[in-house]
Amino acid sequence: MVYGEEFTIQTKGYSDIHDVTTTVSALVKKSGIADGIVTVSVIGSTASVSTTEFEPALNEDIKDQLERFAPSTMESRHSRTWGDDNGFSHIRATFMGPSMTIPISKGSLVLGTWQQIIVIDHDNRGRSRRVFIQVLGE
Amino acid sequence: MVYGEEFTIQTKGYSDIHDVTTTVSALVKKSGIADGIVTVSVIGSTASVSTTEFEPALNEDIKDQLERFAPSTMESRHSRTWGDDNGFSHIRATFMGPSMTIPISKGSLVLGTWQQIIVIDHDNRGRSRRVFIQVLGE
Amino acid sequence: MVYGEEFTIQTKGYSDIHDVTTTVSALVKKSGIADGIVTVSVIGSTASVSTTEFEPALNEDIKDQLERFAPSTMESRHSRTWGDDNGFSHIRATFMGPSMTIPISKGSLVLGTWQQIIVIDHDNRGRSRRVFIQVLGE
Repeated sequence: MVYGEEFTIQTKGYSDIHDVTTTVSALVKKSGIADGIVTVSVIGSTASVSTTEFEPALNEDIKDQLERFAPSTMESRHSRTWGDDNGFSHIRATFMGPSMTIPISKGSLVLGTWQQIIVIDHDNRGRSRRVFIQVLGE
Repeated sequence: MVYGEEFTIQTKGYSDIHDVTTTVSALVKKSGIADGIVTVSVIGSTASVSTTEFEPALNEDIKDQLERFAPSTMESRHSRTWGDDNGFSHIRATFMGPSMTIPISKGSLVLGTWQQIIVIDHDNRGRSRRVFIQVLGE
Repeated sequence: MVYGEEFTIQTKGYSDIHDVTTTVSALVKKSGIADGIVTVSVIGSTASVSTTEFEPALNEDIKDQLERFAPSTMESRHSRTWGDDNGFSHIRATFMGPSMTIPISKGSLVLGTWQQIIVIDHDNRGRSRRVFIQVLGE
Protein backbone atom coordinates (compact mmCIF):
# COMPACT_ATOMS: atom_id res chain seq x y z
CA MET A 1 0.00 0.00 0.00
CA VAL A 2 1.10 3.53 -0.81
CA TYR A 3 -0.31 6.76 0.58
CA GLY A 4 1.02 10.21 -0.36
CA GLU A 5 0.02 13.68 0.76
CA GLU A 6 1.45 17.17 0.71
CA PHE A 7 1.19 19.91 3.32
CA THR A 8 2.51 23.45 3.55
CA ILE A 9 4.26 25.36 6.33
CA GLN A 10 4.93 29.09 6.59
CA THR A 11 8.59 29.72 7.36
CA LYS A 12 10.80 32.70 8.22
CA GLY A 13 13.99 31.54 6.48
CA TYR A 14 17.58 31.69 7.82
CA SER A 15 17.35 28.07 9.02
CA ASP A 16 13.99 28.54 10.70
CA ILE A 17 13.15 25.19 12.36
CA HIS A 18 9.63 23.67 12.33
CA ASP A 19 8.38 20.64 14.24
CA VAL A 20 6.22 18.63 11.81
CA THR A 21 5.90 15.46 13.93
CA THR A 22 2.22 15.94 14.76
CA THR A 23 1.29 16.52 11.11
CA VAL A 24 3.34 13.55 9.85
CA SER A 25 1.95 11.32 12.58
CA ALA A 26 -1.65 12.32 11.72
CA LEU A 27 -1.09 11.59 8.02
CA VAL A 28 0.43 8.20 8.84
CA LYS A 29 -2.67 7.34 10.90
CA LYS A 30 -4.90 8.62 8.04
CA SER A 31 -3.04 6.31 5.63
CA GLY A 32 -4.19 3.24 7.57
CA ILE A 33 -0.67 1.79 7.25
CA ALA A 34 0.39 0.20 10.54
CA ASP A 35 3.80 -1.22 9.56
CA GLY A 36 6.14 0.28 7.01
CA ILE A 37 8.00 3.52 6.42
CA VAL A 38 7.30 7.19 5.85
CA THR A 39 9.53 9.34 3.67
CA VAL A 40 9.33 13.02 4.61
CA SER A 41 10.63 15.22 1.80
CA VAL A 42 10.78 19.00 1.59
CA ILE A 43 10.40 20.37 -1.93
CA GLY A 44 13.14 22.75 -3.10
CA SER A 45 16.91 23.10 -2.83
CA THR A 46 17.18 25.40 0.20
CA ALA A 47 15.57 23.34 2.97
CA SER A 48 16.28 20.16 4.96
CA VAL A 49 14.60 17.44 6.97
CA SER A 50 16.10 15.85 10.10
CA THR A 51 15.22 15.07 13.72
CA THR A 52 16.07 16.84 16.96
CA GLU A 53 14.89 17.34 20.52
CA PHE A 54 12.68 20.26 19.58
CA GLU A 55 13.13 22.95 22.25
CA PRO A 56 13.95 26.68 21.89
CA ALA A 57 17.50 26.63 23.33
CA LEU A 58 18.65 23.75 21.11
CA ASN A 59 16.95 25.30 18.08
CA GLU A 60 19.12 28.40 18.59
CA ASP A 61 22.22 26.21 19.02
CA ILE A 62 21.51 24.51 15.69
CA LYS A 63 21.08 27.89 13.97
CA ASP A 64 24.36 29.11 15.53
CA GLN A 65 26.12 26.00 14.26
CA LEU A 66 24.74 26.50 10.74
CA GLU A 67 25.91 30.12 10.91
CA ARG A 68 29.44 28.99 11.84
CA PHE A 69 29.38 26.27 9.17
CA ALA A 70 28.17 28.41 6.25
CA PRO A 71 27.61 32.03 7.38
CA SER A 72 24.63 33.90 5.93
CA THR A 73 27.12 36.68 5.10
CA MET A 74 29.50 34.39 3.18
CA GLU A 75 30.70 35.17 -0.32
CA SER A 76 29.39 32.72 -2.89
CA ARG A 77 29.67 32.37 -6.64
CA HIS A 78 25.99 31.44 -6.78
CA SER A 79 24.99 34.72 -5.10
CA ARG A 80 27.35 36.79 -7.28
CA THR A 81 26.13 35.10 -10.46
CA TRP A 82 22.40 35.17 -9.80
CA GLY A 83 22.11 38.10 -7.40
CA ASP A 84 19.75 36.25 -5.07
CA ASP A 85 22.15 36.13 -2.12
CA ASN A 86 21.22 32.69 -0.90
CA GLY A 87 24.34 30.67 -1.69
CA PHE A 88 24.67 29.83 2.02
CA SER A 89 21.10 28.44 2.01
CA HIS A 90 21.89 26.03 -0.80
CA ILE A 91 25.12 24.86 0.82
CA ARG A 92 23.39 24.16 4.15
CA ALA A 93 20.57 22.29 2.39
CA THR A 94 22.82 20.12 0.23
CA PHE A 95 24.89 19.10 3.28
CA MET A 96 21.92 18.18 5.47
CA GLY A 97 19.76 16.61 2.76
CA PRO A 98 16.12 17.22 1.74
CA SER A 99 14.48 14.02 2.94
CA MET A 100 14.40 11.42 5.67
CA THR A 101 12.77 8.01 6.07
CA ILE A 102 11.37 6.85 9.40
CA PRO A 103 9.98 3.37 10.23
CA ILE A 104 6.35 2.90 11.26
CA SER A 105 5.61 0.05 13.67
CA LYS A 106 2.19 -0.94 15.06
CA GLY A 107 0.68 2.32 13.84
CA SER A 108 3.30 4.65 15.34
CA LEU A 109 6.41 6.44 14.13
CA VAL A 110 9.55 4.80 15.51
CA LEU A 111 11.10 7.81 17.28
CA GLY A 112 12.50 8.53 20.73
CA THR A 113 10.48 10.43 23.33
CA TRP A 114 12.56 13.55 22.79
CA GLN A 115 13.01 13.14 19.05
CA GLN A 116 10.91 15.27 16.72
CA ILE A 117 10.84 15.46 12.91
CA ILE A 118 11.91 18.90 11.74
CA VAL A 119 11.89 20.88 8.53
CA ILE A 120 14.57 23.59 8.41
CA ASP A 121 14.14 26.39 5.90
CA HIS A 122 17.60 27.77 5.08
CA ASP A 123 16.45 30.32 2.50
CA ASN A 124 17.08 34.04 3.02
CA ARG A 125 13.39 34.95 3.24
CA GLY A 126 10.10 33.62 4.54
CA ARG A 127 8.44 31.09 2.28
CA SER A 128 5.38 28.96 1.91
CA ARG A 129 7.18 25.63 1.94
CA ARG A 130 5.74 22.37 0.59
CA VAL A 131 6.44 19.11 2.39
CA PHE A 132 5.50 15.77 0.79
CA ILE A 133 5.07 12.58 2.80
CA GLN A 134 4.93 9.14 1.20
CA VAL A 135 3.82 6.20 3.35
CA LEU A 136 4.54 2.61 2.23
CA GLY A 137 3.59 -0.58 4.04
CA GLU A 138 0.64 -2.66 5.09
CA MET B 1 6.03 -7.48 2.42
CA VAL B 2 7.19 -5.66 5.53
CA TYR B 3 9.51 -6.97 8.22
CA GLY B 4 10.59 -4.91 11.26
CA GLU B 5 12.87 -5.71 14.15
CA GLU B 6 14.77 -3.86 16.84
CA PHE B 7 18.17 -4.58 18.30
CA THR B 8 20.30 -2.91 20.95
CA ILE B 9 23.96 -1.95 21.08
CA GLN B 10 26.04 -0.87 24.08
CA THR B 11 27.87 2.37 23.29
CA LYS B 12 30.50 4.54 24.97
CA GLY B 13 29.26 7.93 23.74
CA TYR B 14 31.33 10.84 22.35
CA SER B 15 30.67 9.69 18.77
CA ASP B 16 31.52 6.07 19.46
CA ILE B 17 31.20 4.24 16.10
CA HIS B 18 29.65 0.76 15.77
CA ASP B 19 29.60 -1.48 12.70
CA VAL B 20 26.09 -2.96 12.47
CA THR B 21 26.39 -4.43 8.96
CA THR B 22 26.44 -8.08 10.09
CA THR B 23 23.35 -7.62 12.26
CA VAL B 24 21.41 -5.71 9.57
CA SER B 25 22.39 -8.25 6.94
CA ALA B 26 21.25 -11.16 9.15
CA LEU B 27 17.87 -9.50 9.79
CA VAL B 28 17.41 -8.86 6.07
CA LYS B 29 18.03 -12.56 5.39
CA LYS B 30 15.62 -13.47 8.23
CA SER B 31 12.95 -11.27 6.61
CA GLY B 32 12.96 -13.43 3.49
CA ILE B 33 12.87 -10.27 1.36
CA ALA B 34 15.24 -10.62 -1.61
CA ASP B 35 14.57 -7.33 -3.42
CA GLY B 36 13.62 -4.07 -1.75
CA ILE B 37 15.03 -1.67 0.79
CA VAL B 38 16.04 -1.58 4.43
CA THR B 39 15.69 1.53 6.56
CA VAL B 40 18.11 1.55 9.49
CA SER B 41 17.03 4.04 12.14
CA VAL B 42 18.59 4.80 15.51
CA ILE B 43 16.11 5.84 18.18
CA GLY B 44 16.84 9.12 19.96
CA SER B 45 18.14 12.58 19.11
CA THR B 46 21.86 12.15 19.88
CA ALA B 47 22.90 9.41 17.45
CA SER B 48 23.34 8.94 13.70
CA VAL B 49 23.41 6.30 10.98
CA SER B 50 25.74 6.41 7.95
CA THR B 51 28.28 4.24 6.12
CA THR B 52 32.07 4.20 6.17
CA GLU B 53 35.07 1.96 5.56
CA PHE B 54 35.07 0.64 9.11
CA GLU B 55 38.67 0.54 10.32
CA PRO B 56 40.25 1.97 13.50
CA ALA B 57 42.31 4.77 11.92
CA LEU B 58 39.38 6.18 9.93
CA ASN B 59 37.07 5.86 12.94
CA GLU B 60 39.44 8.14 14.85
CA ASP B 61 39.57 10.55 11.90
CA ILE B 62 35.77 10.79 11.90
CA LYS B 63 35.72 11.45 15.64
CA ASP B 64 38.42 14.15 15.22
CA GLN B 65 36.35 15.76 12.49
CA LEU B 66 33.23 15.76 14.67
CA GLU B 67 35.30 17.31 17.47
CA ARG B 68 36.44 20.10 15.12
CA PHE B 69 32.90 20.56 13.79
CA ALA B 70 31.08 20.74 17.14
CA PRO B 71 33.54 20.35 20.03
CA SER B 72 32.43 18.35 23.07
CA THR B 73 33.59 21.35 25.13
CA MET B 74 31.47 23.88 23.22
CA GLU B 75 29.11 26.29 24.93
CA SER B 76 25.49 25.59 24.12
CA ARG B 77 22.19 27.08 25.18
CA HIS B 78 20.76 23.57 25.45
CA SER B 79 23.44 22.53 27.95
CA ARG B 80 23.09 25.77 29.97
CA THR B 81 19.30 25.46 30.04
CA TRP B 82 18.98 21.78 30.90
CA GLY B 83 22.31 21.12 32.62
CA ASP B 84 22.90 17.87 30.76
CA ASP B 85 25.96 19.10 28.83
CA ASN B 86 25.19 17.33 25.58
CA GLY B 87 24.37 20.22 23.25
CA PHE B 88 27.23 19.13 20.98
CA SER B 89 25.74 15.61 20.77
CA HIS B 90 22.41 16.95 19.51
CA ILE B 91 24.07 19.23 16.96
CA ARG B 92 26.18 16.40 15.54
CA ALA B 93 23.14 14.09 15.36
CA THR B 94 20.84 16.62 13.66
CA PHE B 95 23.50 17.36 11.01
CA MET B 96 24.24 13.73 10.18
CA GLY B 97 20.68 12.40 10.46
CA PRO B 98 19.20 9.46 12.40
CA SER B 99 18.37 7.05 9.57
CA MET B 100 19.53 5.67 6.24
CA THR B 101 17.92 3.53 3.56
CA ILE B 102 19.91 0.94 1.62
CA PRO B 103 18.71 -1.15 -1.36
CA ILE B 104 18.51 -4.94 -1.16
CA SER B 105 19.11 -6.86 -4.40
CA LYS B 106 19.03 -10.65 -4.86
CA GLY B 107 19.09 -11.16 -1.10
CA SER B 108 22.07 -8.90 -0.36
CA LEU B 109 22.59 -5.33 0.82
CA VAL B 110 23.79 -3.12 -2.04
CA LEU B 111 27.04 -1.84 -0.50
CA GLY B 112 30.67 -1.61 -1.60
CA THR B 113 33.26 -4.10 -0.36
CA TRP B 114 34.74 -1.52 2.00
CA GLN B 115 31.44 0.09 2.97
CA GLN B 116 29.91 -0.76 6.34
CA ILE B 117 26.71 0.51 7.99
CA ILE B 118 27.53 2.39 11.17
CA VAL B 119 25.66 3.76 14.16
CA ILE B 120 27.44 6.67 15.84
CA ASP B 121 26.46 7.53 19.39
CA HIS B 122 27.22 11.22 19.96
CA ASP B 123 25.89 11.39 23.52
CA ASN B 124 28.17 12.33 26.42
CA ARG B 125 27.87 8.97 28.17
CA GLY B 126 27.58 5.29 27.40
CA ARG B 127 24.10 4.15 26.52
CA SER B 128 22.08 1.11 25.65
CA ARG B 129 21.02 2.28 22.19
CA ARG B 130 18.04 0.93 20.26
CA VAL B 131 18.28 0.50 16.49
CA PHE B 132 15.17 -0.31 14.43
CA ILE B 133 15.34 -1.85 10.99
CA GLN B 134 12.39 -1.94 8.62
CA VAL B 135 12.61 -4.13 5.50
CA LEU B 136 10.21 -3.62 2.58
CA GLY B 137 10.09 -5.56 -0.67
CA GLU B 138 9.31 -8.97 -2.08
CA MET C 1 6.14 -3.77 -6.77
CA VAL C 2 9.91 -3.46 -6.70
CA TYR C 3 12.19 -2.40 -9.54
CA GLY C 4 15.97 -2.13 -9.21
CA GLU C 5 18.65 -1.10 -11.66
CA GLU C 6 22.25 0.02 -11.59
CA PHE C 7 24.01 2.58 -13.75
CA THR C 8 27.54 3.90 -13.90
CA ILE C 9 28.99 7.41 -14.13
CA GLN C 10 32.54 8.47 -14.92
CA THR C 11 33.78 10.93 -12.29
CA LYS C 12 36.84 13.11 -11.76
CA GLY C 13 37.04 12.87 -7.95
CA TYR C 14 37.67 15.69 -5.42
CA SER C 15 33.91 16.11 -4.88
CA ASP C 16 33.07 16.14 -8.56
CA ILE C 17 29.28 16.72 -8.79
CA HIS C 18 27.03 14.88 -11.27
CA ASP C 19 23.38 15.56 -12.05
CA VAL C 20 21.66 12.14 -12.27
CA THR C 21 18.05 13.41 -12.31
CA THR C 22 17.38 12.53 -15.95
CA THR C 23 18.71 9.00 -15.52
CA VAL C 24 16.80 8.37 -12.28
CA SER C 25 13.62 9.82 -13.77
CA ALA C 26 13.92 7.60 -16.87
CA LEU C 27 14.42 4.48 -14.72
CA VAL C 28 11.40 5.39 -12.57
CA LYS C 29 9.28 5.67 -15.74
CA LYS C 30 10.72 2.35 -16.97
CA SER C 31 9.70 0.71 -13.67
CA GLY C 32 6.05 1.46 -14.36
CA ILE C 33 5.63 2.55 -10.73
CA ALA C 34 3.49 5.71 -10.54
CA ASP C 35 3.27 6.19 -6.77
CA GLY C 36 5.95 5.22 -4.28
CA ILE C 37 9.56 6.01 -3.55
CA VAL C 38 12.95 5.73 -5.18
CA THR C 39 16.10 5.14 -3.15
CA VAL C 40 19.21 6.41 -4.93
CA SER C 41 22.36 4.86 -3.48
CA VAL C 42 25.96 5.29 -4.55
CA ILE C 43 28.13 2.22 -3.97
CA GLY C 44 31.32 2.79 -1.98
CA SER C 45 32.48 4.78 1.03
CA THR C 46 33.84 7.91 -0.68
CA ALA C 47 30.77 9.30 -2.44
CA SER C 48 27.44 10.92 -1.53
CA VAL C 49 23.93 11.52 -2.82
CA SER C 50 21.95 14.73 -2.20
CA THR C 51 20.01 17.40 -4.10
CA THR C 52 20.96 20.89 -5.22
CA GLU C 53 20.13 23.55 -7.77
CA PHE C 54 22.58 22.16 -10.30
CA GLU C 55 24.45 25.09 -11.87
CA PRO C 56 28.21 25.67 -12.28
CA ALA C 57 28.62 28.54 -9.78
CA LEU C 58 26.85 26.71 -6.97
CA ASN C 59 28.72 23.49 -7.76
CA GLU C 60 31.98 25.37 -7.16
CA ASP C 61 30.57 26.84 -3.92
CA ILE C 62 29.75 23.34 -2.67
CA LYS C 63 33.26 22.12 -3.52
CA ASP C 64 34.76 25.17 -1.72
CA GLN C 65 32.65 24.40 1.33
CA LEU C 66 33.78 20.76 1.35
CA GLU C 67 37.37 21.96 1.05
CA ARG C 68 36.90 24.22 4.10
CA PHE C 69 35.11 21.46 6.01
CA ALA C 70 37.63 18.64 5.38
CA PRO C 71 40.54 19.91 3.23
CA SER C 72 41.95 17.55 0.60
CA THR C 73 45.37 18.36 2.13
CA MET C 74 44.36 17.42 5.67
CA GLU C 75 46.35 14.98 7.78
CA SER C 76 44.45 11.80 8.49
CA ARG C 77 45.24 8.57 10.30
CA HIS C 78 43.53 6.65 7.50
CA SER C 79 45.85 8.14 4.88
CA ARG C 80 48.96 7.60 7.04
CA THR C 81 47.97 4.00 7.79
CA TRP C 82 46.97 2.90 4.32
CA GLY C 83 48.95 5.31 2.15
CA ASP C 84 46.01 6.01 -0.14
CA ASP C 85 45.67 9.68 0.84
CA ASN C 86 41.90 9.83 0.74
CA GLY C 87 40.99 10.26 4.40
CA PHE C 88 39.25 13.54 3.53
CA SER C 89 37.12 11.71 0.94
CA HIS C 90 35.84 9.24 3.52
CA ILE C 91 35.10 11.97 6.06
CA ARG C 92 33.09 14.01 3.53
CA ALA C 93 31.17 10.91 2.43
CA THR C 94 30.29 9.72 5.93
CA PHE C 95 28.99 13.19 6.88
CA MET C 96 26.81 13.64 3.79
CA GLY C 97 25.58 10.05 3.50
CA PRO C 98 25.55 7.58 0.57
CA SER C 99 21.85 7.42 -0.21
CA MET C 100 18.65 9.42 -0.46
CA THR C 101 14.98 8.53 -0.84
CA ILE C 102 12.63 10.65 -2.94
CA PRO C 103 8.85 10.25 -3.28
CA ILE C 104 7.23 9.44 -6.64
CA SER C 105 3.73 10.81 -7.23
CA LYS C 106 1.62 10.34 -10.37
CA GLY C 107 4.61 9.04 -12.29
CA SER C 108 6.99 11.90 -11.41
CA LEU C 109 9.74 12.50 -8.88
CA VAL C 110 8.59 14.91 -6.17
CA LEU C 111 11.27 17.60 -6.54
CA GLY C 112 11.30 21.38 -6.92
CA THR C 113 11.86 23.01 -10.31
CA TRP C 114 15.43 23.95 -9.36
CA GLN C 115 16.19 20.80 -7.40
CA GLN C 116 18.32 18.10 -9.03
CA ILE C 117 19.53 14.75 -7.66
CA ILE C 118 23.32 14.71 -7.47
CA VAL C 119 26.05 12.16 -6.91
CA ILE C 120 29.25 13.67 -5.48
CA ASP C 121 32.45 11.69 -5.83
CA HIS C 122 34.79 12.72 -3.02
CA ASP C 123 37.61 10.30 -3.88
CA ASN C 124 41.08 11.59 -4.81
CA ARG C 125 40.97 10.23 -8.36
CA GLY C 126 38.59 9.68 -11.22
CA ARG C 127 36.45 6.58 -10.93
CA SER C 128 33.83 4.56 -12.68
CA ARG C 129 31.15 4.92 -10.03
CA ARG C 130 28.16 2.61 -9.63
CA VAL C 131 24.79 4.04 -8.62
CA PHE C 132 21.89 1.73 -7.67
CA ILE C 133 18.28 2.84 -7.73
CA GLN C 134 15.50 0.87 -6.07
CA VAL C 135 11.89 1.82 -6.86
CA LEU C 136 9.04 0.64 -4.60
CA GLY C 137 5.35 1.33 -5.04
CA GLU C 138 2.41 0.61 -7.27
